[in-house]
Amino acid sequence: MPSVTALQWREDACYLLDQTKIPWAETYLRCETYPEVISAIKSLAVRGAPLIGIAGAYAVFLAVRESQQQPSPSSFIKKALEEIENARPTAVNLRWAVGRMRTLGERSQFKNYEELLKEAGDIHEEDIECNRSMAGFGSELFGSDSKVLTCCNTGDLATGGIGTAFGVFRAGFERGHVTHVYACETRPVLQGLRLTTWELDKNKIPYTVICDNMAASLMQKGKITHVITGADRIAANGDSANKIGTYSLAVLAKHHNIPFYIAAPFSTFDLNTPTGNEIPIEQRNPDEITKVLGPENIFQPPGYNPSFDVTPASLITAIVCNKGIIENPTAEKVRKVLCHA
Amino acid sequence: MPSVTALQWREDACYLLDQTKIPWAETYLRCETYPEVISAIKSLAVRGAPLIGIAGAYAVFLAVRESQQQPSPSSFIKKALEEIENARPTAVNLRWAVGRMRTLGERSQFKNYEELLKEAGDIHEEDIECNRSMAGFGSELFGSDSKVLTCCNTGDLATGGIGTAFGVFRAGFERGHVTHVYACETRPVLQGLRLTTWELDKNKIPYTVICDNMAASLMQKGKITHVITGADRIAANGDSANKIGTYSLAVLAKHHNIPFYIAAPFSTFDLNTPTGNEIPIEQRNPDEITKVLGPENIFQPPGYNPSFDVTPASLITAIVCNKGIIENPTAEKVRKVLCHA
Repeated sequence: MPSVTALQWREDACYLLDQTKIPWAETYLRCETYPEVISAIKSLAVRGAPLIGIAGAYAVFLAVRESQQQPSPSSFIKKALEEIENARPTAVNLRWAVGRMRTLGERSQFKNYEELLKEAGDIHEEDIECNRSMAGFGSELFGSDSKVLTCCNTGDLATGGIGTAFGVFRAGFERGHVTHVYACETRPVLQGLRLTTWELDKNKIPYTVICDNMAASLMQKGKITHVITGADRIAANGDSANKIGTYSLAVLAKHHNIPFYIAAPFSTFDLNTPTGNEIPIEQRNPDEITKVLGPENIFQPPGYNPSFDVTPASLITAIVCNKGIIENPTAEKVRKVLCHA
Repeated sequence: MPSVTALQWREDACYLLDQTKIPWAETYLRCETYPEVISAIKSLAVRGAPLIGIAGAYAVFLAVRESQQQPSPSSFIKKALEEIENARPTAVNLRWAVGRMRTLGERSQFKNYEELLKEAGDIHEEDIECNRSMAGFGSELFGSDSKVLTCCNTGDLATGGIGTAFGVFRAGFERGHVTHVYACETRPVLQGLRLTTWELDKNKIPYTVICDNMAASLMQKGKITHVITGADRIAANGDSANKIGTYSLAVLAKHHNIPFYIAAPFSTFDLNTPTGNEIPIEQRNPDEITKVLGPENIFQPPGYNPSFDVTPASLITAIVCNKGIIENPTAEKVRKVLCHA
């Protein structure tokens, strides 16, 4: 069972834990309309590729419900669904979930909108199950006294259940194989420092938080046995977009002969994107970097703030998917596991 | 001429620009006693290996001046000089400068203390000259349209003059060869975001600040042609300790076939330290990492905060020293350039 509920449907609304407030406060945003969900996605109040997908599914239901009060429900729905799937560009789970909701809704011209609420709930439940499967497969990766490095946040704040990468090393910890987790703070938004440490703490997993620029030094000292992260979109050939800094960790892991793993459910794969070169990378406001200087700062240096980077498949030891483990990923192996498992 | 004076001797005191306040305010600490200088070094009000050396030299003068009011001047001086040279452990310039002041002082049993003020001034002047020499040698490294990545701060806030690495790419910019500088923000203390951007701005060099975890992505996109940093201590074999994250940049540069340079004056070399393994690495309070969560934060995750890392000589394309350029550094080449130039 997840120890935190990042997203809940109750009282006719979608409740989202406001993750911009973690670890300072645990407050929920009550979203009764689809623009409220979009706003929460854009502001990073709700984030994590699988969780964005789930939130997007509920947003579709909300949009269809709202359309009933509109003069032209179908054009309202068309526009709303486009807005939802474009709320953030990189994580494909959002487009996947909206696509699935759209396909179902179109069968009844969006008349039977209660079935869309059930579908969003199913997407949520399936993600919980995906998390469990990944944890099961992934926990096999660890030998005794494994020390894991991760970045960003991939636990129950990022998914419907126990998480992607987080669920994998959590399962390794529960088996007694993973003894320590190093969490990269993950600038500029600090998902590692704010969210992953908070989850590690709640799960009583021994951990240390580091600045992103300290990972190489830990590897050099032999402190890391596994690097494992989530993903926001995996191209058909296994190239994986994930939080900025992931590619850096993959290169560093390679240099130090440390295995590098990605954990992601089937909904993160995008077989329509041939390679990482075609994955759109979200550019966010450089203010995210400079606001650490505080409100009294009058100096705004020019910044560059890509939210993601792409790790080529050649640097990935294996992808842990809910359908199995894809070692040394290639287009053929990805297709085989995704389409025939 | 330096555009900012990070350290000045005037009105019988050592004035230190309080760098913890940059870029919010330009205020000076007036140090009339050696413990005030030590306190400024420990708090990072004054930082940068060469500048710490200069500050340490003035601190020795202050200690000897203070000793005149003590019942036992010689034991006061002995203790004071040990405190000064141990204020921070990694940068060897501090020990080097204190050692030079001690050697001179001992000749007159520290009676002729005015000559120590002149010696501290000479150390300062020589560092300015070292900066000029490095810039001269180093500016030869750049072809047209060079795009430089650097970390931490190595300009006139870190040295007596125009800087080490900063002076080198500034000279490249003045020649029209360096067209852009990417400054890593350098967590946790943000010397890159706070200090290097401030210096780049004052020098009108086109630049962009990035989070440390974005460097690999820029390299992957072909945006970086040179990586150049300073150093805090260079061992006899060329292994170089510098700000945490430098080793990471060196590994990433190697992976992307980008040359990686260190710029440091002779006083940063420590021929008594055979390799990087013997360089002491300062561990600072993990609060430096977590305080970014703000004063209202009640959650203090365990952190790890090494202030430096060690880049092996094998990853260094060349060391730019004031005595010349040491390509593919080895113990023999280091000795040759340092001792016979």
